[in-house]
Amino acid sequence: MGTFDCLSLLTDYGLDDGFVAACHGVATRIDPGIRIIDITHLVPPGDVRRGAAVLAQTIPYLPRAVHVAVVDPGVGTSRRGIAVEAGGSIFIGPDNGLLSWAVAAVGGAARAHQLTNGEFWLHPVSQTFHGRDIFTPVAAHIAAGTGLAEIGTELDPAHLVTLPSPTSRVNNGEAEGEVMSVDRFGNVQLSIAASDADQLGIGFGSQVVVRCGRRRVTVPYLETFAAVAPGELVAFTDSAGLISLAVNAGDAAQQLGLPPGAHVRLVAATPS
Amino acid sequence: MGTFDCLSLLTDYGLDDGFVAACHGVATRIDPGIRIIDITHLVPPGDVRRGAAVLAQTIPYLPRAVHVAVVDPGVGTSRRGIAVEAGGSIFIGPDNGLLSWAVAAVGGAARAHQLTNGEFWLHPVSQTFHGRDIFTPVAAHIAAGTGLAEIGTELDPAHLVTLPSPTSRVNNGEAEGEVMSVDRFGNVQLSIAASDADQLGIGFGSQVVVRCGRRRVTVPYLETFAAVAPGELVAFTDSAGLISLAVNAGDAAQQLGLPPGAHVRLVAATPS
Amino acid sequence: MGTFDCLSLLTDYGLDDGFVAACHGVATRIDPGIRIIDITHLVPPGDVRRGAAVLAQTIPYLPRAVHVAVVDPGVGTSRRGIAVEAGGSIFIGPDNGLLSWAVAAVGGAARAHQLTNGEFWLHPVSQTFHGRDIFTPVAAHIAAGTGLAEIGTELDPAHLVTLPSPTSRVNNGEAEGEVMSVDRFGNVQLSIAASDADQLGIGFGSQVVVRCGRRRVTVPYLETFAAVAPGELVAFTDSAGLISLAVNAGDAAQQLGLPPGAHVRLVAATPS
Repeated sequence: MGTFDCLSLLTDYGLDDGFVAACHGVATRIDPGIRIIDITHLVPPGDVRRGAAVLAQTIPYLPRAVHVAVVDPGVGTSRRGIAVEAGGSIFIGPDNGLLSWAVAAVGGAARAHQLTNGEFWLHPVSQTFHGRDIFTPVAAHIAAGTGLAEIGTELDPAHLVTLPSPTSRVNNGEAEGEVMSVDRFGNVQLSIAASDADQLGIGFGSQVVVRCGRRRVTVPYLETFAAVAPGELVAFTDSAGLISLAVNAGDAAQQLGLPPGAHVRLVAATPS
Repeated sequence: MGTFDCLSLLTDYGLDDGFVAACHGVATRIDPGIRIIDITHLVPPGDVRRGAAVLAQTIPYLPRAVHVAVVDPGVGTSRRGIAVEAGGSIFIGPDNGLLSWAVAAVGGAARAHQLTNGEFWLHPVSQTFHGRDIFTPVAAHIAAGTGLAEIGTELDPAHLVTLPSPTSRVNNGEAEGEVMSVDRFGNVQLSIAASDADQLGIGFGSQVVVRCGRRRVTVPYLETFAAVAPGELVAFTDSAGLISLAVNAGDAAQQLGLPPGAHVRLVAATPS
Repeated sequence: MGTFDCLSLLTDYGLDDGFVAACHGVATRIDPGIRIIDITHLVPPGDVRRGAAVLAQTIPYLPRAVHVAVVDPGVGTSRRGIAVEAGGSIFIGPDNGLLSWAVAAVGGAARAHQLTNGEFWLHPVSQTFHGRDIFTPVAAHIAAGTGLAEIGTELDPAHLVTLPSPTSRVNNGEAEGEVMSVDRFGNVQLSIAASDADQLGIGFGSQVVVRCGRRRVTVPYLETFAAVAPGELVAFTDSAGLISLAVNAGDAAQQLGLPPGAHVRLVAATPS
């Protein structure tokens, strides 16, 4: 009986090859009873920020687990592999900031170790697939009971690489943020917390002005996108507690021309 | 030990985000031993008919389970959440017809309850992700032993929303139907049961005339698409017991210009 | 308690329909405790060579298991269904060569049986979905303890269909091969083993000339693609031990115009 019953996996490996299955196989051979939850394997190749955002938004709904995340454009170079304890879970991956938002979301790092002990790796270690050869086997050993201290040198959590937080500011009744992500429905998630809406004087039912570049649209702020007629724009509080823009039964990202990273400002509409 | 060992999930959430994993996590935290079978998460966004068709065709091959289905363009509005007992399984989802074909396929609803008891929900409940916050947690509680009566008010099954059945008629030796779905191979599944072929005077080896709009093609009716040469059109009985059109090693939907919903007629070819 | 705890699945069924879930359901009903590892379901429709390559490269990382593979353009015709014991695992699928590279990779067939005993099939057997009706149920029965001899007639392993091996030759200091696969990152995997590099006089840090058609590029041979600057071409040893071509943070397949099957030659660059 291991310390953790569950291992999660988030990568940019895609689903066309056997890469994800190799990780499942490696974990299962080490800890035959482990449950594996695939968060996603369709992070755009090398997009560390996108991986970090999906991880941070999903982790609160998973059981305590060993969470393996691999979006690792620097694989095989000097970037470190790390294991971080936070919120009762262990996060494992490259030290490139990928884990940082999730670790912060569950309360910050309690301690961290570098993956230096090759005893828990799969040999020979390839230079380009540390997900299979280092991260997953270390994770499975931890799930099966290996202590964090055994997997490598202790690190000062303050020295881990962190991604800069997304822009998110409220000033003089204006909220400034960026597009965090665009989901399958074309819904545009902003880095502006719904809890900031109060400061903007915005409540459900009021109108909001959205500015991006030279565009400017006024949309109702409502509890759900389904509250407007099909084809209409709406701002709402999404399932991660962030303000999002949608077109009911349509694609807001396409209609507004808002890709991830785009800069956006919100103000309450002044009644005319 | 729960009442059900297995939970199935069908949604239009896609695989790019962490939405599906959040549902897996929520279920696992409530019922750590539960097995989860993902039916598909690639139902086209909001396409309730497509979701209903995939669910109804897959359910007969799954174990008795709690089946959660979420294609829910009206999430957060007044549409009800329901749990329906049918064929020894429980079906959970929005009351928008999504469950209706599957429930009918396993013998019809024995009883139904509205999801009104918030005790089994995940709080705070978002207005746009009831899959995570209502449907999946209720399903996991039922799998773990909670009775249907506890999850909310009883409903008369006769008052549940049902989708109109696909067109399927046999008249004067002509079968009339529609395209149910197009699979990855470009095979065109019709809403005409293979068991109707007899009434049409069609047996394996005979020729069938397929009419759609002004097109008219004559194809052999055979046991499998692989019975014709590569590149040739064929009608066959598919794995759901429906008459389907295929091009061996090709794409029939593309070649015939037949999207889901298209109207099609079949007659036996008269020997010339 | 069965003979095998794990069943793996590789198909070209795609993820849009309920086909994969039906196989999971059928296996689970026969052997409720079985773990299922999905290798991939996105093999291009009917591409037996691609399926064989992914299977052979993934199997070494999976536990001993019953491995079901279905890329089966001849389903419903006279091609045989087979179960092959190799490397302590059982491989099940159509006898069209799909299993042959994986079987060879784990040491060759110890014995083989044709799937002739309908007692272990799901009836009625469809003519087009043997994955659900024959291969998976037989696999689940074997996992649960049924002996290979019970599932059908013994075959001489020497008479199984095998795929021709990919071209791979080293002659006069030149290696000749083909593109085995292109992964999600656009990395081009060649059929030339990294262990052949020595014979070519190529070590890490040296330059390699790659010739394909009339194109000719000189690239460094390094331990990982991340060792060159973003946008630069590199040859490296991939996670399957094969020489691969990559563009760091780019798409080598696109840049070089190299699809699967393309013919490629490598020589050491002569210092100029």
